[in-house]
Amino acid sequence: MQYDHILLEHGSGGLLSHELVRNLFLPLFRNEHLSRMEDAATFSVGSQRFCLTTDSYVVHPLFFPGGDIGSLAVHGTVNDIAMSGGRPLFLSAGFIIEEGFPYGELQTICRSMATAAERAGVEIVTGDTKVVPKGTADGLFINTSGIGIIEYAATPGVACIRPGDVIIVNGPVGDHGAAILQARQSLGFKSAVISDSAPLNGLVAGILEANPHVHCLRDATRGGLGGILAEMAEQSGLVFILDEAQIPIHEDVRAICEILGLDPLYLANEGKMVLFCPETEAKNILAVMKNHPYGREGALIGQVKEGKRGRLILQTAIGGSREIDLPTGELVPRIC
Amino acid sequence: MQYDHILLEHGSGGLLSHELVRNLFLPLFRNEHLSRMEDAATFSVGSQRFCLTTDSYVVHPLFFPGGDIGSLAVHGTVNDIAMSGGRPLFLSAGFIIEEGFPYGELQTICRSMATAAERAGVEIVTGDTKVVPKGTADGLFINTSGIGIIEYAATPGVACIRPGDVIIVNGPVGDHGAAILQARQSLGFKSAVISDSAPLNGLVAGILEANPHVHCLRDATRGGLGGILAEMAEQSGLVFILDEAQIPIHEDVRAICEILGLDPLYLANEGKMVLFCPETEAKNILAVMKNHPYGREGALIGQVKEGKRGRLILQTAIGGSREIDLPTGELVPRIC
Repeated sequence: MQYDHILLEHGSGGLLSHELVRNLFLPLFRNEHLSRMEDAATFSVGSQRFCLTTDSYVVHPLFFPGGDIGSLAVHGTVNDIAMSGGRPLFLSAGFIIEEGFPYGELQTICRSMATAAERAGVEIVTGDTKVVPKGTADGLFINTSGIGIIEYAATPGVACIRPGDVIIVNGPVGDHGAAILQARQSLGFKSAVISDSAPLNGLVAGILEANPHVHCLRDATRGGLGGILAEMAEQSGLVFILDEAQIPIHEDVRAICEILGLDPLYLANEGKMVLFCPETEAKNILAVMKNHPYGREGALIGQVKEGKRGRLILQTAIGGSREIDLPTGELVPRIC
Repeated sequence: MQYDHILLEHGSGGLLSHELVRNLFLPLFRNEHLSRMEDAATFSVGSQRFCLTTDSYVVHPLFFPGGDIGSLAVHGTVNDIAMSGGRPLFLSAGFIIEEGFPYGELQTICRSMATAAERAGVEIVTGDTKVVPKGTADGLFINTSGIGIIEYAATPGVACIRPGDVIIVNGPVGDHGAAILQARQSLGFKSAVISDSAPLNGLVAGILEANPHVHCLRDATRGGLGGILAEMAEQSGLVFILDEAQIPIHEDVRAICEILGLDPLYLANEGKMVLFCPETEAKNILAVMKNHPYGREGALIGQVKEGKRGRLILQTAIGGSREIDLPTGELVPRIC
């Protein structure tokens, strides 16, 4: 379908985001790197492999339980590099600031970026600042781009997923989305949910060092666990079967979703990833994962099977099953 | 001086931009790459040198004589890489789109990016799209980041400028700023000025291949020729003496500046660079420059001398001289 105007949903990470990439960006910017549709582009220079990635952050509000736009902008880009099996080296930071933005808030956010970068072991080495007149942007937008070096023989990716693989997640899903909803005070009640925003490069490095048989990694950001897995199922042409009872979700997140009529599987995460590996490696990988602060509540949540077309199937706790599609509509605009 | 709020001038490329970098970003993100304050950060991996750069584009209007935000976003980042002596390899593209933005315009702009990238010999290999609710951004902002490979022994930079160097510009200055003013229809008359937006990597590669004795390159974007040179003079601690009569400026640009009371030396360029080299190399470099489509009107415009502190001096056509400071205030917001 063709649209006359860009809708919020084109930025949701769901169906229309997908269409925008497929129908507009891929045909125009056609190249082997982009067409892999991974979170980061990988390329070689001489014998060395690298990855490059970018994300713009427009989260609202700028400060939320568990983080702010600054830490989010560092973690998000670090994670995209880590998902390509890369060790993050350097980040760039591009600020678009609305005239009149409080100087002190900018300082706090930059301090938060600096702390997040230090913890993730990356340096912010280049930047750019644009200021636009009052009313032409909402406070502050930040773009971070990053380059990583790939030191492992295999580059995990959707193309490496095989029937028989299992699907692992590193902890409870939906925290970031729920924390943003709470921060907007749209809940009508107080909860203890905080964003899971975190750098996953240390966790990924630990896993890849201990076990090279990781087939694919993807962070479950916009679109949530369900959106990401539905997209990957489509890309891979395989059937992913999720066991609902095994998917970790915090009680507070469940409660928020029930009240608001949202599906926690579609709520964004900023410190959660899915990992695909052969079933034989799962025990070892889960052991490494659970030994890391960002993987303590890791769980095996599903498996991969052959099929006629890519599909994501949820086996529900009460014994039924339903297909999960890419989310349509925009659940929570400006989630990241 | 400390400010309570961010002003338009903090994004002008002038005095307050400078202060923001020195007082906020440098102390927080402290590292050797950032503190060189070049347009791109350079770093080594193994024996190979690279550069990384980023720019956000917020130009208004999105379409102007000689280009649009799409071609500008490619040229600007390609040029930042070229100024570090790098050969641009890959770009990322991050879109922040206001809900309701015409799909067809986005398509036109992306087509323009694709064409510009092809002409510059780079690939757009990774991207990101955010859509924000109507009223929270003005149409479209684009961030491009880029990575280049440095294949020349010397990395040109401000630290390499020496007393006795001459200053060369590759053509008439102020066209981009004047074209944007014209596109905003704020002139009250029609002129034939078009933006000089162009990729300079081919020109730079030709010069560096023919003559390795280039000491410094910088594209004269925000802040214009005067702003850039004043900043570089301060950074280098040397005195730059410009010969006003030798600075190429189109007649239409002069006319626009006279009517609006603007100084063409502070008007932005998007396809102009300054080059520093020993006087003995100037003839050779100018010959190579004039042989390239983007250097035909190149000119030797000044020289570098010792001094007690970094200063930019303009020797006027009528025989006087005046010091040129970093521009204060914001001449033309959203110029790029």
